Amino acid sequence: MSGALPNGVVTLLTDFGTADAYVGIMKGVALGVHRDVCLIDLTHDIPPQAVAVGGLVLRGAVPFFPAGTVHCAVVDPGVGSARDAVAVVTERAVLVGPDNGLLAPAAAALGGVRDVFGLENAALFRQPVSRTFHGRDVFAPVAAHLARGLDPAELGPRRARMTPLSLAEPVISPAAARGEVIHVDRFGNLLTNLGADLLGADLLDAFRGHRVSVTVAGMSAAALVATYADAAPGTLVALVSSWGTLEVAVRDGNAALQLGVGRGAAVVVARE
Amino acid sequence: MSGALPNGVVTLLTDFGTADAYVGIMKGVALGVHRDVCLIDLTHDIPPQAVAVGGLVLRGAVPFFPAGTVHCAVVDPGVGSARDAVAVVTERAVLVGPDNGLLAPAAAALGGVRDVFGLENAALFRQPVSRTFHGRDVFAPVAAHLARGLDPAELGPRRARMTPLSLAEPVISPAAARGEVIHVDRFGNLLTNLGADLLGADLLDAFRGHRVSVTVAGMSAAALVATYADAAPGTLVALVSSWGTLEVAVRDGNAALQLGVGRGAAVVVARE
Amino acid sequence: MSGALPNGVVTLLTDFGTADAYVGIMKGVALGVHRDVCLIDLTHDIPPQAVAVGGLVLRGAVPFFPAGTVHCAVVDPGVGSARDAVAVVTERAVLVGPDNGLLAPAAAALGGVRDVFGLENAALFRQPVSRTFHGRDVFAPVAAHLARGLDPAELGPRRARMTPLSLAEPVISPAAARGEVIHVDRFGNLLTNLGADLLGADLLDAFRGHRVSVTVAGMSAAALVATYADAAPGTLVALVSSWGTLEVAVRDGNAALQLGVGRGAAVVVARE
Repeated sequence: MSGALPNGVVTLLTDFGTADAYVGIMKGVALGVHRDVCLIDLTHDIPPQAVAVGGLVLRGAVPFFPAGTVHCAVVDPGVGSARDAVAVVTERAVLVGPDNGLLAPAAAALGGVRDVFGLENAALFRQPVSRTFHGRDVFAPVAAHLARGLDPAELGPRRARMTPLSLAEPVISPAAARGEVIHVDRFGNLLTNLGADLLGADLLDAFRGHRVSVTVAGMSAAALVATYADAAPGTLVALVSSWGTLEVAVRDGNAALQLGVGRGAAVVVARE
Repeated sequence: MSGALPNGVVTLLTDFGTADAYVGIMKGVALGVHRDVCLIDLTHDIPPQAVAVGGLVLRGAVPFFPAGTVHCAVVDPGVGSARDAVAVVTERAVLVGPDNGLLAPAAAALGGVRDVFGLENAALFRQPVSRTFHGRDVFAPVAAHLARGLDPAELGPRRARMTPLSLAEPVISPAAARGEVIHVDRFGNLLTNLGADLLGADLLDAFRGHRVSVTVAGMSAAALVATYADAAPGTLVALVSSWGTLEVAVRDGNAALQLGVGRGAAVVVARE
Repeated sequence: MSGALPNGVVTLLTDFGTADAYVGIMKGVALGVHRDVCLIDLTHDIPPQAVAVGGLVLRGAVPFFPAGTVHCAVVDPGVGSARDAVAVVTERAVLVGPDNGLLAPAAAALGGVRDVFGLENAALFRQPVSRTFHGRDVFAPVAAHLARGLDPAELGPRRARMTPLSLAEPVISPAAARGEVIHVDRFGNLLTNLGADLLGADLLDAFRGHRVSVTVAGMSAAALVATYADAAPGTLVALVSSWGTLEVAVRDGNAALQLGVGRGAAVVVARE
């Protein structure tokens, strides 16, 4: 498979929620393929059909898993249509899911694509394959087969490329970076698409230690701090989050509520 | 036990939610009985005390687990009263929970009841047994003992029958089927009690391929499609869901919000 | 380590929610340390930064896990500041988390503190250690090392004490106990800080069997019952919950909604 031998761990990321048994059903099918698979939830609360959010949350999580993990992700508005289903082999891990961009940021975070295989070997699927629930019928059993050591080349023909994630790119100039809020977390922190890897380390280094203004939806400004604890409670601050992207937060508060903004809000970082 | 040897997997379905540690506590007790049990969540977000919803979600999930699984379900408004607690043995699996109808649809989906045993062997329980939390004190340890290979006949005396689930049955005529919404999923899709097994395959075949009208609460109508992708975005459609029951949905939208309906809303399928 | 050999189980309790992948990331790091660790969620829906709620939910859960379990808890408003990080060794288990009071009630419930070690051995951490996510970089890998058998004395220097949880103590007199609602569960039941261990068994015995009045926020009164089933539907009752603390509930209803009260509401139990 990849450079790493499978370690038996399969992660799951979906937009299925946990109020129904959809995720449990995927696990049941995986356990039927490979009883000793270790199934780990990343999250199932990706907003319905939000491929970009799913892709970025997946990218944020995969680097922290041991080599040889299989990551199965299903945010799949095109299920039942002609969209392709793929396994993406990287140096450290294999990604399984629909070929709609969802897997692309994670593949980059794992060191880049080595091989892409179309999922066409129907002998590996749960039969009959429904047209609405490929998580159960295609992706879960394929992930379990890979975790058990199946050579990805057995899945189907090699593809020349995978579909990239369609995402608003931040606009970078020497004096400013313009991006947007891509996710609001449970604490009301605003996660942006302004990342160290996107901004370029130089710009970020230039920003760090300088006075910068961070403007969210034209509504406010604050300093770039190293950690929440460097700010007074109630202060609006910007920091480089544990995801490696710029985050706007209120110390001991809820930035989304306080600013009245959410996903899609414009964020501008400028040197003063 | 059943025809299948235990595989060490125990599924859990409850109405306990995940904001408290109730489910974690059940797992702790199970691990104390059998350290190598594999604990899989189906869902813990069954609406409080909604035995029928729990029963139908459980029915939808159990067929996808490997033979030899133990399914532990707790939606138990009668806890602490005289209601019976049982283990239901089927060809493929064993079900454990209160005898209030919750287990009945799943037992049917697993090929029917072979044996029912009352849970009376208190040596298998966590002591002292509380009057409010049998999930922890009775059902979790019994499920773990079964997963470890305990003969269900050791649990207690054989019962003549189990309690059926009390559920509004759909009303079927040659030209129409009248049922109701039994669950609204995370996507706002309306799951109904109009199932292939309830409608009768003949009627469903008669419907499929014909023009039918689907009326939900007198508010709308749409075509029966094979998959979401067959409909234009925003269209209200009906399809046979991955659960095997009729589902009403809006392509790329939220049917519950759009129609303003929820659980209990009347659904009529009629040939035009 | 403790009197008990590690059993390979690590529980996780946080305020991270499950909408993001934070918890999954902690699990990835733990699996990288010890592939065979058994990771069990207690809950991740502790209200953000609510150390007292986290401490009490943890206390309610730990007694139900087998000896040798490692409990990793992260409700950590001071992350990135000078607050200490510790492992607390008890007779049955080891607790890992920030030293902000979160671990104290659980340590007491596990038989009391044997040893406290500061987490200073950076060789056990994920590097580089961020200033915002010690759950990932410090607590998860340390918990996995302990589950694998690491001697806690390897973690860092012994501390003289741990920080106690700062919590409103109930006020007890021979005729009345005055406390408050510390948590509202999914069913709207009001969990209080009036516990058998806090009230003193004598007082509770004195109350049980007597007519008592339970007043919540000056709004209502009801009898002390042994189980929900002893009350008529819709009745407001008080009972000793499965957590060992006084709980105010409405049979088949939602006490929080019906009384219009929540966390912090005053609760008075008095003999009539």
